Amino acid sequence: MSDKRIELLTSRIRDIPDFPKPGIIFKDITPLLADPQAFATSLEMFEERYKDEGVDVIVGIESRGFMFGAALANKMNKSFVPVRKPGKLPAATYRCEYELEYGTDACEIHQDAIPKGAKVLVIDDLLATGGTARATAELVGRAGGEVVGIAFVIELTFLNGAEKLSPFPPYSLIKY
Amino acid sequence: MSDKRIELLTSRIRDIPDFPKPGIIFKDITPLLADPQAFATSLEMFEERYKDEGVDVIVGIESRGFMFGAALANKMNKSFVPVRKPGKLPAATYRCEYELEYGTDACEIHQDAIPKGAKVLVIDDLLATGGTARATAELVGRAGGEVVGIAFVIELTFLNGAEKLSPFPPYSLIKY
Repeated sequence: MSDKRIELLTSRIRDIPDFPKPGIIFKDITPLLADPQAFATSLEMFEERYKDEGVDVIVGIESRGFMFGAALANKMNKSFVPVRKPGKLPAATYRCEYELEYGTDACEIHQDAIPKGAKVLVIDDLLATGGTARATAELVGRAGGEVVGIAFVIELTFLNGAEKLSPFPPYSLIKY
Repeated sequence: MSDKRIELLTSRIRDIPDFPKPGIIFKDITPLLADPQAFATSLEMFEERYKDEGVDVIVGIESRGFMFGAALANKMNKSFVPVRKPGKLPAATYRCEYELEYGTDACEIHQDAIPKGAKVLVIDDLLATGGTARATAELVGRAGGEVVGIAFVIELTFLNGAEKLSPFPPYSLIKY
């Protein structure tokens, strides 16, 4: 990986203090999306990492994963499948619940979204505790796919989300 | 516009009866996203329509507008800016409320998202009553941009959303 590309991407992430609540520093990717060269660079790095993995389907996680996942699917000429919050997908779904700090959340995939045995790359913007990505990987399996990778723009390594994703190795463009 | 392309897109939209509530037939675009050729065709048609309009920024409306908007921005080498539901964008925002059948909803844009005078193309998947797209166009104006187009994959013409968008002419790939 070229340091120059990482430098470009990192320069397009801004820290927003106290969002969504006091004491948290939010990594805002909107400057990266606003810079066509930076956005293209992020997609190019994902493509380089996965171009020889036989990917059939790219799954994007709602909502920011849609931006990177759909653009990457178009760039790589792959099928795009959204994983959404409960109640958003109109046809029959599988649902996976996962634990939050307080309470639970859930995500869904269309039951017929993944061709049997398809190789699937999961994309999201941020790896924090890994709950959503883990649940998404499980949904892909239930829908008949094989997860060949889980990729993020940003990984917050101090939250140990990568451990939760085992045995799926995460790939992250930027690590904090 | 080629009939063959419209036929391809139309064949990749499926009707889901009684979603999100009884009596409504939901137009599901997930089969279109799952077909790389159909997804690429939709982006190609958007690009053809707007390539000579001097577009600087593509605004995508949460959530399905992110899929088409971000992929189109990457394809056309333009800046991508998300318009989101309240409380999702981390920095200072402008907010626009709009009326629903019962009650109101709102959307937000980062105050610094649009360079002054930038030409903006707004993208969403569906034009129904036009409330969200109208509010988004107003937000783009408040943020300093000039809306040069509002484009949709699908337009439900019987809901007369196009009237609500005046003076911005909507462009829709498929009309029902």
